[in-house]
Amino acid sequence: MRHTYSVWVVGGDQRQARLAELLAGAGHTVYTFGLERAGALEGVEARTELSEAGESDCVVLPLPAMGEKSTLNAPLSEQKYPMEEILTAIGSGPAVCAGRVDPPLQELADRLGVTLHDYAAREEFAVANAVPTAEGALQLAMEELPVTLHGARVLVIGFGRLGRALAPRLSALGARVTVAARKWSDLAWIKVSGWEGEHSGQLKGWLCAYDLIINTVPALILDEGCLHDLKPGCLVLDLASKPGGVDFDAARRLGVPAIWALSLPGKVAPVTAGVIVRDTVCHILDELGV
Amino acid sequence: MRHTYSVWVVGGDQRQARLAELLAGAGHTVYTFGLERAGALEGVEARTELSEAGESDCVVLPLPAMGEKSTLNAPLSEQKYPMEEILTAIGSGPAVCAGRVDPPLQELADRLGVTLHDYAAREEFAVANAVPTAEGALQLAMEELPVTLHGARVLVIGFGRLGRALAPRLSALGARVTVAARKWSDLAWIKVSGWEGEHSGQLKGWLCAYDLIINTVPALILDEGCLHDLKPGCLVLDLASKPGGVDFDAARRLGVPAIWALSLPGKVAPVTAGVIVRDTVCHILDELGV
Amino acid sequence: MRHTYSVWVVGGDQRQARLAELLAGAGHTVYTFGLERAGALEGVEARTELSEAGESDCVVLPLPAMGEKSTLNAPLSEQKYPMEEILTAIGSGPAVCAGRVDPPLQELADRLGVTLHDYAAREEFAVANAVPTAEGALQLAMEELPVTLHGARVLVIGFGRLGRALAPRLSALGARVTVAARKWSDLAWIKVSGWEGEHSGQLKGWLCAYDLIINTVPALILDEGCLHDLKPGCLVLDLASKPGGVDFDAARRLGVPAIWALSLPGKVAPVTAGVIVRDTVCHILDELGV
Amino acid sequence: MRHTYSVWVVGGDQRQARLAELLAGAGHTVYTFGLERAGALEGVEARTELSEAGESDCVVLPLPAMGEKSTLNAPLSEQKYPMEEILTAIGSGPAVCAGRVDPPLQELADRLGVTLHDYAAREEFAVANAVPTAEGALQLAMEELPVTLHGARVLVIGFGRLGRALAPRLSALGARVTVAARKWSDLAWIKVSGWEGEHSGQLKGWLCAYDLIINTVPALILDEGCLHDLKPGCLVLDLASKPGGVDFDAARRLGVPAIWALSLPGKVAPVTAGVIVRDTVCHILDELGV
Repeated sequence: MRHTYSVWVVGGDQRQARLAELLAGAGHTVYTFGLERAGALEGVEARTELSEAGESDCVVLPLPAMGEKSTLNAPLSEQKYPMEEILTAIGSGPAVCAGRVDPPLQELADRLGVTLHDYAAREEFAVANAVPTAEGALQLAMEELPVTLHGARVLVIGFGRLGRALAPRLSALGARVTVAARKWSDLAWIKVSGWEGEHSGQLKGWLCAYDLIINTVPALILDEGCLHDLKPGCLVLDLASKPGGVDFDAARRLGVPAIWALSLPGKVAPVTAGVIVRDTVCHILDELGV
Repeated sequence: MRHTYSVWVVGGDQRQARLAELLAGAGHTVYTFGLERAGALEGVEARTELSEAGESDCVVLPLPAMGEKSTLNAPLSEQKYPMEEILTAIGSGPAVCAGRVDPPLQELADRLGVTLHDYAAREEFAVANAVPTAEGALQLAMEELPVTLHGARVLVIGFGRLGRALAPRLSALGARVTVAARKWSDLAWIKVSGWEGEHSGQLKGWLCAYDLIINTVPALILDEGCLHDLKPGCLVLDLASKPGGVDFDAARRLGVPAIWALSLPGKVAPVTAGVIVRDTVCHILDELGV
Repeated sequence: MRHTYSVWVVGGDQRQARLAELLAGAGHTVYTFGLERAGALEGVEARTELSEAGESDCVVLPLPAMGEKSTLNAPLSEQKYPMEEILTAIGSGPAVCAGRVDPPLQELADRLGVTLHDYAAREEFAVANAVPTAEGALQLAMEELPVTLHGARVLVIGFGRLGRALAPRLSALGARVTVAARKWSDLAWIKVSGWEGEHSGQLKGWLCAYDLIINTVPALILDEGCLHDLKPGCLVLDLASKPGGVDFDAARRLGVPAIWALSLPGKVAPVTAGVIVRDTVCHILDELGV
Repeated sequence: MRHTYSVWVVGGDQRQARLAELLAGAGHTVYTFGLERAGALEGVEARTELSEAGESDCVVLPLPAMGEKSTLNAPLSEQKYPMEEILTAIGSGPAVCAGRVDPPLQELADRLGVTLHDYAAREEFAVANAVPTAEGALQLAMEELPVTLHGARVLVIGFGRLGRALAPRLSALGARVTVAARKWSDLAWIKVSGWEGEHSGQLKGWLCAYDLIINTVPALILDEGCLHDLKPGCLVLDLASKPGGVDFDAARRLGVPAIWALSLPGKVAPVTAGVIVRDTVCHILDELGV
């Protein structure tokens, strides 16, 4: 970003508030809308109307952009704003960046002639967010377990972005790490990286040794049978988005401590989460030639 | 420990309760005294009198062994027991292991003819406890900071056991680590390990870049002048035992978030803390030829 | 591999010889052909005719399978064997595994009705071989450089399998690692992993600080202009397959020490290279249901 | 070193030659004596007489300072210089730094009234040299072993400076590392660091699993009985100074590949070795207030 831009940060939570401050700190002219309860943000002008947003270079909508009943996702605002009004006010002038553009939102934007650039769909956004998610999982594990991660036997299920961020961190803290994956090439990477590998399809009957299991795969892997095998006190963290990978009802019945931890970046590291949105928005503007 | 022993675990907190269970799980005959509120412990017999303790192989007193007014340190007990009564009941038969034997306790034991083996004074105990302390510090930092440790600039003051446990963990999580030490040889180790080194005597004026400062040196290093230099929002964790290394009054006045975190092992990882006491007690018994 | 097989190991170098011993050591019945100069191999029967190979479960051809003039690649044999004769003798009975099946070999096999399973084309084979290749590169760098890797500034070009194996090793040895890549998502991974990232397209003018440059991309990146920028004494290792990534003529003219290091696994770690072939062949047999 | 000095670099090998260039590159006035065969050194004036050395700020003698028959250790010189002449020429004016001052040299210096500052005796010098020594050992192991260090079972004997530099490097390359030590506190550090620990006194009978054994303890540990236990092909590297820790005669008889690797820093990384001498000499000058 060699130039300075005029940017509107619209709706969202602490992550958007931090984003606004970061952009202002970098010299851009920044306006917010729908972030009243975030308090005064340094270098940022809070507006109560969107009327001038259409003349800006860029508008950043939150993650997810749209909340319930087709309104702007704006938990820090006192009011509800229909998304249709928001997009109409913005219009087709600025580059509009939005987090997680689902089909209804896409349809609405198409109808109104507004092009949405989904920063949450970009690979580098997901990769960068694996770090605060992994740190959030470590923090939860440290808070909940009566043993140190050093020396603990930990199973990470899945070797996508999250698995790849979790395994080296756990290992560096001294945990004995096993990673479960499905593909031979992933299992080769796991071995190359110095961890134990298991086939995700063959976990049943081999789960009794772990102190901590972290699931990253959004498919029911830890069903009642698996949960039954666990060592008493084994902690289960599920980081997978819906439908998740754990039968939480069975966990409750069996007394297995299980936590479904979603959206960790914004909760455990809002400033870092804001930095990641900023970087991704900059890549989008760079590619658009704004 | 090739034999099975008869062991009394007397007083203390969750760490002692876990210790009792661990020893029982390893096949020893274990009795507790003064741990009523820990609830039923698996394989352990709770006693309300110490009369038979004198016939056992080993008695383990807590860390610290002696609490206020020369009583047994027994926060999980309903009652207060004068230490003199406790030591008299134990007598000189068993090997008596105690945590942190201070001069008054030593004097009392000498007077009663009881030999105390201070497990907390042994180097391997301190080394092993550096791990739960370091993990506890990471947990606190993750809970308090709005950024990830990955990418954060962190200063560790001191390169003793704690500094040596902290720096590689922080570094492995992606923090940019600087360690402050006084000796050329420590600074050589710091460089050899791949971290930045600073002279602890020359910190003033060079503290404005850090997101997190962790002190491990029990001497006033972060005085008002130093605290004044910090970047707004920089978190200060003091892990040093009394007198600590931070001017907490000045921190409060200046709005610097500062936490004095003591006795982390028993708080964040009581089971691991119990394992460490067990291992150290075993070394003592091994050396005594019990 | 739950069963024991009858396996022929045909042609190749030390890697094939080690493979034969490894299979024999695991209880399989192993015959070799065209490996005379490898000497006696433990538990392995050397044959001078292929006539019975057609009745075996599996035949393993070397990497590459075919040498010059359409003969078997058999550097440890006294004789030359036309590949057509070899494949005809083997026939369509056994599972035939071969390394790097190029179009002429594929054509020949198709004509003779022999199905070839290319182990070298499998992802897990390439991943596993990244380790001996990376270690070979470290060894070369240590042999050639008058400084330690600890503290050296190293640029790795490319973030494919090899880049991902090299960067953590260099970093763990204390080098200051920069990785050049083209994609935002790769650059995000590089940052997440704690290394510096550079756009491969923007290296020119930024190469003067490195002590060591390791290229892994098979495209001319280090042209005369780039080589001109290097610090005197900067070592260049090219690990990319043909056409390589370095203008070696220019390097010679400019006095830049540059080494094109190919086929490192078989050279620096033949036993490990044999293990990797064995593991991959086992995956093929497993998938074929042999 | 805030000032620029006049420094004489006298005798020694490539390490001294690199040292001279490094000092010249930092702006000091540098003269060499007894380094003829090192060729022209950038920014350095070669002298054939020592007569003006007495007026300089600092003279650096090599490591070891004294060679056979009480002469200057000067393998890159055409001539032999009695150490008595050298010290007499230098006199008591400059700060004289020398490597490894043994009793005969100390006696000579005392007699001539010259104070020698032994840089090789300083802790930070030994610590810093552990890195090139460790890298040299890795290089040797990679050159000699037919397997990768990744996945190899490695025993490091001793947990002094060298053991502490070797274990993390081997571990980071993917070796399964065991460290043998004698003290409980060292064994605690080994466990805290995530490696397996063994008592050095109880190795006999437990050596059959290793692919590589690196000794760092200068006492006969690997005697004939131990060597007899090794797996065929296990490589033994002895890094201990005299008398070493391996019975090399027995190794030859038993066909155990064993290498006694001494003085690795100057051989594998002369520039880094020169940097370490320079840094240590600077600390000496700093403490002397020169």
